[in-house]
Amino acid sequence: MMLSDPSQKYRPFPQVDLPNRQWPSRTITKPPRWLSTDLRDGNQALIDPMNAEKKQRFFELLIKVGLKEIEVGFPSAGATEFDFISGLVRSGAIPDDVTIQVLTQARRDLIETTFQSLEGAKRAIVHVYNAVSPAWRRIVFGMERNEIKKIAIDAAKLLRDEAAKRPDTDWHFEYSPETFSTAELDFSLECCEAVMDILQPTAEKPLILNLPATVEAATPNIYADQIEWMCRHISKRDAVVISLHPHNDRGTGVAAAELGLMAGADRVEGCLFGNGERTGNCDLVTVGLNLYTQGVNPLLDFSDIDEVIQTVEYCNQLPVHQRHPYAGELVFTAFSGSHQDAIKKGFAAQEARNDQLWDVPYLPIDPADLGRNYEAVIRVNSQSGKGGVAWVLQQDKGLKLPKRMQADFSRVVQGVADQTSRELNANDIWQAFESHYRLTEGQRFELVDYQESGAAGDRIFVGRITLDGEERSISGRGNGLLSSILCALREELGVDLEIADYSEHAVGAGTDVNAAAYVECRTPDGRTFFGAGLDSDVATASVKAVLSAANGVALASA
Amino acid sequence: MMLSDPSQKYRPFPQVDLPNRQWPSRTITKPPRWLSTDLRDGNQALIDPMNAEKKQRFFELLIKVGLKEIEVGFPSAGATEFDFISGLVRSGAIPDDVTIQVLTQARRDLIETTFQSLEGAKRAIVHVYNAVSPAWRRIVFGMERNEIKKIAIDAAKLLRDEAAKRPDTDWHFEYSPETFSTAELDFSLECCEAVMDILQPTAEKPLILNLPATVEAATPNIYADQIEWMCRHISKRDAVVISLHPHNDRGTGVAAAELGLMAGADRVEGCLFGNGERTGNCDLVTVGLNLYTQGVNPLLDFSDIDEVIQTVEYCNQLPVHQRHPYAGELVFTAFSGSHQDAIKKGFAAQEARNDQLWDVPYLPIDPADLGRNYEAVIRVNSQSGKGGVAWVLQQDKGLKLPKRMQADFSRVVQGVADQTSRELNANDIWQAFESHYRLTEGQRFELVDYQESGAAGDRIFVGRITLDGEERSISGRGNGLLSSILCALREELGVDLEIADYSEHAVGAGTDVNAAAYVECRTPDGRTFFGAGLDSDVATASVKAVLSAANGVALASA
Repeated sequence: MMLSDPSQKYRPFPQVDLPNRQWPSRTITKPPRWLSTDLRDGNQALIDPMNAEKKQRFFELLIKVGLKEIEVGFPSAGATEFDFISGLVRSGAIPDDVTIQVLTQARRDLIETTFQSLEGAKRAIVHVYNAVSPAWRRIVFGMERNEIKKIAIDAAKLLRDEAAKRPDTDWHFEYSPETFSTAELDFSLECCEAVMDILQPTAEKPLILNLPATVEAATPNIYADQIEWMCRHISKRDAVVISLHPHNDRGTGVAAAELGLMAGADRVEGCLFGNGERTGNCDLVTVGLNLYTQGVNPLLDFSDIDEVIQTVEYCNQLPVHQRHPYAGELVFTAFSGSHQDAIKKGFAAQEARNDQLWDVPYLPIDPADLGRNYEAVIRVNSQSGKGGVAWVLQQDKGLKLPKRMQADFSRVVQGVADQTSRELNANDIWQAFESHYRLTEGQRFELVDYQESGAAGDRIFVGRITLDGEERSISGRGNGLLSSILCALREELGVDLEIADYSEHAVGAGTDVNAAAYVECRTPDGRTFFGAGLDSDVATASVKAVLSAANGVALASA
Repeated sequence: MMLSDPSQKYRPFPQVDLPNRQWPSRTITKPPRWLSTDLRDGNQALIDPMNAEKKQRFFELLIKVGLKEIEVGFPSAGATEFDFISGLVRSGAIPDDVTIQVLTQARRDLIETTFQSLEGAKRAIVHVYNAVSPAWRRIVFGMERNEIKKIAIDAAKLLRDEAAKRPDTDWHFEYSPETFSTAELDFSLECCEAVMDILQPTAEKPLILNLPATVEAATPNIYADQIEWMCRHISKRDAVVISLHPHNDRGTGVAAAELGLMAGADRVEGCLFGNGERTGNCDLVTVGLNLYTQGVNPLLDFSDIDEVIQTVEYCNQLPVHQRHPYAGELVFTAFSGSHQDAIKKGFAAQEARNDQLWDVPYLPIDPADLGRNYEAVIRVNSQSGKGGVAWVLQQDKGLKLPKRMQADFSRVVQGVADQTSRELNANDIWQAFESHYRLTEGQRFELVDYQESGAAGDRIFVGRITLDGEERSISGRGNGLLSSILCALREELGVDLEIADYSEHAVGAGTDVNAAAYVECRTPDGRTFFGAGLDSDVATASVKAVLSAANGVALASA
């Protein structure tokens, strides 16, 4: 059992003193600078870290997606890391508009190794960090504030001096007061200012100040407060780039990134699909596509999301969850009837309006923008209504059932779904359709061929059919094709039907069926039988539809 | 390629006019009322909806977790749903302190069926909804505001009248202006007030007004603004329960729930691990445990999280992701060295402090609170430093390596990890330890037995060892055990070592090894060799440790 009073073990996170906070009234109107740390923070959190081949593949994917800043590793962490990074630098595979970034702890030997790994780079960001929060000072380092700040200052001096030794590279720097989210704001500020004093950033060559939620420890509004506080208090605001690095321990990493941007940050660090230590980093795909659906171009290309998913799953050996925003395999599905019906109407309205604006119920983004298909949108189970079933038939078979027939068939499908207790796929639905409307072979009445003659308003139908497999001729007279068939059925076969509704439509290209006909028939005693006919010929489809209804009568009286 | 300017296709979500907003300064100080909709919203979004056995199992789990309000289905959606619900009501399996809730659309026939399914219930919440937003009005219904409002009013009258027919049940009502998050606030308010006019709720018998983010369409602060606006404008605030139902299309459903509670809501609807249509509902496990780590008892019991996960995965046939907050299998792991080191120190400090407060770096919650083990916390790969390796040896084998030996062994492990490119498990690490410190059989020098004699300060060591498999005697003299062995090694075997560091400790119960000894030895030419010895006897462990170092010298000069 849970502790009877867990509040004895945990403390509420303190509020930030932020009079007149501005961020809740702001919106995000332009994309941030993005940094992917998939190859560093993401990679270090994998069960099996990527080998060189996977790292290369992931790097190429990031380029393709449009990342311009990529943290490629932690060069001093081991030979695998060092070799990949120095190999990448030497390979010439880094596009001119892409800057690589590497991470190092604030220690002399590690910083030196870090610069060595970047030998020959055209441009690079060296990212140095040290933890500043009270818990880390007390538990991990046993140091006072001044000692911690000295670590940052010494590291900044090393950055400055090591860079000066290698003037052929265009060096940029990033400083992270690690564990920022759980540190005193005034001390984080003090460390940042101390580093700025050494590195002397300018608007032309700014210092990146990365303010990580190393551990997400409060509701995301608190992180936004912290970011706004820093943006207000930092000196030379125009000489620094405020960067976010939200983790996701409380499941609000994406929100923290968004509120942090509203609070004034310029840059977001994260991973594709939110990989990273423990619960991961904030998900750049979601933050990016969230902007996209607000009319802000994220400058990231997820137009082939499936390719992105496949590469990331291969490299990380971790799945993207079925319900992952934008990317999960279930996020463009709707199982419930009312949802399916609304989506179907939304697509129809979208087509009818024919404007550029996306507005379809339950779908915040056009699946086509991610390289996905509409067909995948709806599946059918026992919770689905007529909208979903009709949609599948229309998508897969080009059939547009009339409204009452949709209702009839939906009851059929619901019965099947109730029996099987599983999702019905398109094929299940099609089989149910063929079976229920008697389109399969072996029916009582089957058409062999027919002729039609006579003048307008007085038509004669002469047909050959099989009756329980035996061929025979029937004929009838009426004022049109359907009435002449009904006459033949009534007079020669004893099946008395009248037509309550009829419809027919052409079926799209690419199949040998060119027409679909539907009839709703009534018997003299008031029973209703629906019939369907598919044929390459429009008239023959009608004949078949009537025979389909007649077979229904035959089955019902059998 | 992505559209060159996607802002032409999507529009930014409008701001809410909320002067003097209060929620960003508030905190959550008490748990909300929780409603699980796993059996309704969750179930309807499953590829294979639950059968009766799974629904029963899930229901029992929810009871065990402590849910007091459970939406059990949509009785008018089909026979499966109706039968499960009426069966549950008749079974007597609903505890006295648990209220079931059922959902229905605002239509006469469906509402009547809904009440029928609850025949004989002691107490129940009937939840009726209709969609109110402009897109739904225009696209789905083709109706004006007044017609939409009339649907709500008519439904409310039906609720009132059907309930009156069945006075033996304690009826409660919930009204959802569906698609609230994308509707005009004044119209949502108008519909809610119209329903209140009919149902006449009181503080003693309040109406639940559920305000769904049917589709999450904006940053979570906007949802909070909407909730605060409603809380301020609704009449008879004390006669209504404001309920949240956040979906997760933008990956911020948990944040929306939290900010919505800060904005004044009383109740949260969601699913375990965030199941539900598309990207799912907000995750009750995460929202609950987020409160827990802020010292607020959520009144939900996740103390055996693995059981919860197993049942939910079985019933939903969907996995809980490896990085899911609190529940994922990777969220209590740390692969990187600095994280591992900090966690190790955190556990040690926690033990030393011996107070109730949880404060361990990188772990926002004590894994034990969820029924998990510390041992699972750290795994080791090529990114891991000495902290992690040492931790595994301590957890699994009870060995507490001295600091410099940790560093020595960490380099060994890193080399192995670099070679294998995969995670090393505890066994890999143990094998590397045995091999590197020559604890396996077949070494140059192996101890058979020994005797020690002499007075304090003048000890004589007489031992039998095997030298490349052949037994022989050696002896030496020194001021203690170690120096007498070193003397024997030097004078009889030509191995010249001195001790730079030595430590020994008892090993916990449950094994046949009672002592572990470690030596750090130097050769005259300045090389360092570490040795380790394990034995049931403390003195023998020391002898073995020295021989282990001597075998290192032998191997190095072989």
